[in-house]
Amino acid sequence: MIIVMRHDATSAQVAAVVAQVQAHGMRTHLSDGDERTVIGVIGTNPFALRDLFIEAPGVAEVVPITKPFKLSNREFRSRDTRIKVNSHEVGGDRIWIVAGPCSVDNEELYLESCRLVQAAGAHALRGGVFKPRTSPYSFQGLRAGGVEILREARRQTGLPLVCEVLAPADIDTLAELADVLQIGARNMQNFALLSEVGRLRKPVLLKRGMSATIEEWLLSAEYILSQGNYQVILCERGIRTFETYTRNTLDLNAIPLIKELSHLPIIVDPSHGTGRRSLVTAMALAGIAAGAHGLMVEVHAQPEVALSDGAQSLTPQAFRQLVEQVDAVAAALQRPVGVS
Amino acid sequence: MIIVMRHDATSAQVAAVVAQVQAHGMRTHLSDGDERTVIGVIGTNPFALRDLFIEAPGVAEVVPITKPFKLSNREFRSRDTRIKVNSHEVGGDRIWIVAGPCSVDNEELYLESCRLVQAAGAHALRGGVFKPRTSPYSFQGLRAGGVEILREARRQTGLPLVCEVLAPADIDTLAELADVLQIGARNMQNFALLSEVGRLRKPVLLKRGMSATIEEWLLSAEYILSQGNYQVILCERGIRTFETYTRNTLDLNAIPLIKELSHLPIIVDPSHGTGRRSLVTAMALAGIAAGAHGLMVEVHAQPEVALSDGAQSLTPQAFRQLVEQVDAVAAALQRPVGVS
Amino acid sequence: MIIVMRHDATSAQVAAVVAQVQAHGMRTHLSDGDERTVIGVIGTNPFALRDLFIEAPGVAEVVPITKPFKLSNREFRSRDTRIKVNSHEVGGDRIWIVAGPCSVDNEELYLESCRLVQAAGAHALRGGVFKPRTSPYSFQGLRAGGVEILREARRQTGLPLVCEVLAPADIDTLAELADVLQIGARNMQNFALLSEVGRLRKPVLLKRGMSATIEEWLLSAEYILSQGNYQVILCERGIRTFETYTRNTLDLNAIPLIKELSHLPIIVDPSHGTGRRSLVTAMALAGIAAGAHGLMVEVHAQPEVALSDGAQSLTPQAFRQLVEQVDAVAAALQRPVGVS
Amino acid sequence: MIIVMRHDATSAQVAAVVAQVQAHGMRTHLSDGDERTVIGVIGTNPFALRDLFIEAPGVAEVVPITKPFKLSNREFRSRDTRIKVNSHEVGGDRIWIVAGPCSVDNEELYLESCRLVQAAGAHALRGGVFKPRTSPYSFQGLRAGGVEILREARRQTGLPLVCEVLAPADIDTLAELADVLQIGARNMQNFALLSEVGRLRKPVLLKRGMSATIEEWLLSAEYILSQGNYQVILCERGIRTFETYTRNTLDLNAIPLIKELSHLPIIVDPSHGTGRRSLVTAMALAGIAAGAHGLMVEVHAQPEVALSDGAQSLTPQAFRQLVEQVDAVAAALQRPVGVS
Repeated sequence: MIIVMRHDATSAQVAAVVAQVQAHGMRTHLSDGDERTVIGVIGTNPFALRDLFIEAPGVAEVVPITKPFKLSNREFRSRDTRIKVNSHEVGGDRIWIVAGPCSVDNEELYLESCRLVQAAGAHALRGGVFKPRTSPYSFQGLRAGGVEILREARRQTGLPLVCEVLAPADIDTLAELADVLQIGARNMQNFALLSEVGRLRKPVLLKRGMSATIEEWLLSAEYILSQGNYQVILCERGIRTFETYTRNTLDLNAIPLIKELSHLPIIVDPSHGTGRRSLVTAMALAGIAAGAHGLMVEVHAQPEVALSDGAQSLTPQAFRQLVEQVDAVAAALQRPVGVS
Repeated sequence: MIIVMRHDATSAQVAAVVAQVQAHGMRTHLSDGDERTVIGVIGTNPFALRDLFIEAPGVAEVVPITKPFKLSNREFRSRDTRIKVNSHEVGGDRIWIVAGPCSVDNEELYLESCRLVQAAGAHALRGGVFKPRTSPYSFQGLRAGGVEILREARRQTGLPLVCEVLAPADIDTLAELADVLQIGARNMQNFALLSEVGRLRKPVLLKRGMSATIEEWLLSAEYILSQGNYQVILCERGIRTFETYTRNTLDLNAIPLIKELSHLPIIVDPSHGTGRRSLVTAMALAGIAAGAHGLMVEVHAQPEVALSDGAQSLTPQAFRQLVEQVDAVAAALQRPVGVS
Repeated sequence: MIIVMRHDATSAQVAAVVAQVQAHGMRTHLSDGDERTVIGVIGTNPFALRDLFIEAPGVAEVVPITKPFKLSNREFRSRDTRIKVNSHEVGGDRIWIVAGPCSVDNEELYLESCRLVQAAGAHALRGGVFKPRTSPYSFQGLRAGGVEILREARRQTGLPLVCEVLAPADIDTLAELADVLQIGARNMQNFALLSEVGRLRKPVLLKRGMSATIEEWLLSAEYILSQGNYQVILCERGIRTFETYTRNTLDLNAIPLIKELSHLPIIVDPSHGTGRRSLVTAMALAGIAAGAHGLMVEVHAQPEVALSDGAQSLTPQAFRQLVEQVDAVAAALQRPVGVS
Repeated sequence: MIIVMRHDATSAQVAAVVAQVQAHGMRTHLSDGDERTVIGVIGTNPFALRDLFIEAPGVAEVVPITKPFKLSNREFRSRDTRIKVNSHEVGGDRIWIVAGPCSVDNEELYLESCRLVQAAGAHALRGGVFKPRTSPYSFQGLRAGGVEILREARRQTGLPLVCEVLAPADIDTLAELADVLQIGARNMQNFALLSEVGRLRKPVLLKRGMSATIEEWLLSAEYILSQGNYQVILCERGIRTFETYTRNTLDLNAIPLIKELSHLPIIVDPSHGTGRRSLVTAMALAGIAAGAHGLMVEVHAQPEVALSDGAQSLTPQAFRQLVEQVDAVAAALQRPVGVS
């Protein structure tokens, strides 16, 4: 951390800052520029002290110089994290595709959708029984009532299940059933929930919050990692911007950037990232070309009757084509690609 | 809800949409323009069907024409909601001021801060024992350990307590102690938590999420109201934008806008809304001039040693001046003001 | 355009709105819902009247139902626009690659860079002699002094030049020299400049403004088209969001979306779109996979001495690899792809 | 400027950076932390060299430590700038109110509006004859045809005129007529135009761009100041965010912040800042309470027939009430207020 003094700071003000830094057990290093003095602060986690200095007399600015995330930081662990989900190693060379309906509503259609995505090449199933909905008047998911349907889907397809948890109380219901627990965008900073899934020893899929910076996202991963659960898969699903023609703005810059900053695997959700069926395939391909380790795609046997997010669900036929094109792009790039 | 057909939609496509609307028990009303056909959908909650139509053949767009929030909507209840917190009626003419340290850390300093804000004119105390922090390595609050300190603060000052809840599990600890339960910005869409506090019969202070639209915010209030708890106070605390000189962008447009759209009371938090001590007083005054029913202000007896958010905490002396200026502005405007 | 009345609007208020619409020579169509009346407005360009109604007594909302862009709208011209730039047809199947230094500063290095990008496979050269810079204290380009250098670059390579214009006064200098005139992001709504280039009969590359919606961008294209110049190439170059780890957020959703809404060609600038050299290749590939008709890439023979934007410039070697990977992805997708 | 090296940077990499800094005539200052080396760069305008280092081997980050704006920076000129516009001193204690129709369309209505705003207490008139419009199909202003009307308005009222310039070519028409030249939000980074008005010796009103940071805004002011024209008045008019219920998000944090960072006067435009008539008065009062030196308000004798922005125009009666309330707030605060 660096403390930048105002150009008119007195030497007494500089001395006071230095004394306070040292009182917290850290060392200082002074540098006098032409216009102002700059104080380097050396020690463990100095940035936690930022608030003590930012409005202190004579201080112009306090600048962090190390990233606040540690366990997820590639600077301290250069090798890619790989996470086993059944037979697939997420974070390795092979692309991981999670697919299925947004939510479990109708048993028959859900099971049919699952069989079709399996046939088309999916490696895991979306299994939403708890659904976060903006309005209390929208369908909230089948909740515990959907569990048997999920179990049946896994039995019929043999594919692992990715299930969203909304609250610590859901974990009991889902932990035994789900192969991967998903934390949705709206809960990315639900710290109580993050800590709970950090205590499990099971893969967690952590979606980016709709207005979360890359740094905040990695700090949320850090909540899980710091409880001892190292199996975190990140998922970019679009951020909120001023643009309204699309439901979200899929931030694919995040893919190569996360791969540079962190060793955790990252996948892309082009369905929520666009909110429009007609854009999903193009953005899935773009995500893979950008270097993503996988995709999460909404597919429904009959999108026109889906109780949530039908507008962004692919038909099984469109999904099959998507998988073929994804394979072609991955082959063309002899994955891994794009980031040296 | 209105379904706008493409200019080249066939009459068979129009007929198919009409048939599907009617199959859901709603009525339709056709209007042929020069360029295209528009189908009005008449019935209860038609917007829930939006996803069924948005990608249907021949459809260009689906446009909502009623607001999705009901119980919080001023169109259906024109009289202002007023909420009793001890002797104060929040939402009435008198301004309500909540003040105190961001978190309870040091018992002595916390109690001193509380006595000082009381002396300066605060009507309620901030009492944060559970703190949501971006990093797992930051101070997380005293949690249950802080409860006795809160009790003592209330005993010494007689002022009501506003306490944040982070998880359903906190409610037991806080429900009996706190006079108002606060839902923080990061939990504005933690629907499990909203439903829980909706089951209480106790005022809830609902902060706006940092990227929440006005509509989403009112829909989150709706989660609480629809469980039967009508005592919801809204709090604008700044939204996330591209500007980085301030921690957040305080959106004061929200004040007169919420007063137009809803009957719920609304207050302003200029401390989080700016993140800089030097801007707090100006923005508190602006909030009151814009018509807010109250303020939530961070005040600390010794901001320079606060373990969280010291940079945005006022000294007790500065807070006393703020209260005097707020009183002067309120008097000048013979509150209520600014919205006809 | 649809005028939605308030649920408590009187029939006199409805009648007044209808009368005013008709006074402007348009027809109306009434629809009574359970909760409110909705008035359809039929005629040419009704949305121009929006302001007359939005605050009229009894009106709740005014909703556009046709897109305000006409000449660029695919609804009215379904065939892709193709634009000849020398021997290349931009907007067709073959990918168009513009490359070179951000600005012309040093003659020798500029010419060397041009020869190297040509060798690597570029189809056109970036030739910035007028540079828009945020600070008046930064390098502003060689201006007229760079024109001879550009001429020499074209002579040596035979490649066409893409040159940015900042003001109507630059057009004389550049119109004869440049093969494509570029309007930069900061001038996307410089309407005087748009009208001027609309009077030329020469391709214009129109970058998206950093906070421009898709609709505003197409309306800016409309300024050029409506003057009779139909040769407009759109270029996505990143939008401004809250994220600060990247200079901009490259919005690749825009690629398939523009292809759906408009017949104009669209290319991607991953250099400005990320601001970081290490992300450029990944995002170039993503742009092509998303369906872009081309790329604009900053390449400099010695990025470490570039007077502007060195941090995002590729070396010629890295650019050569990028071109190879782009070719592989394009082949894999048997372009066009991703948009049905 | 500070160059932060990666934790695994070699001493050769550190030495190479130091050598390159020195080769540019600047001095360095090394500081070794526990985890990494930090190089301070000392000299004039070191930040211009940022691009040379940000991607150099071993470099993690380059951090500016001085603000890039100079002439507008309060650190180097602590006294408030005051600008004479007729008899009024903008930037002093008395509030300056500019009012009138958004554009000059109908002569009779424009002159009537001007007389009414004068009677209500305005100090200057809005006189838009060149209008920037998002769509080429919207009313573009009377252009040169409106000049006589403006002249007449000034003759009748004796009030000074604030007129927007869209292009260098407009300056001839307007420079003699207008008392203050306005640069609109869309032209805030039209550097050619900024330089032109910098050559005049006449007050310039510089609106904030809709996605401009505070720093970019001050750098645009710097373009004008650095040409020798020190009479710059800043105007906050709302920024673009994700919120769509209001046309823009009025960023009142900017008022006390600009007053802290700069000595230039700043006013507020609540009409564009909200886009809704019903919010204008509340936000005008909020702007004054936040410390603004003045207001720019749209007022029209018959808002319902205005050809542009009628939805945000006040009636003359509403404007008269606004002025009264503004006076009351200003008196209550014994202006200047809110910022120490």
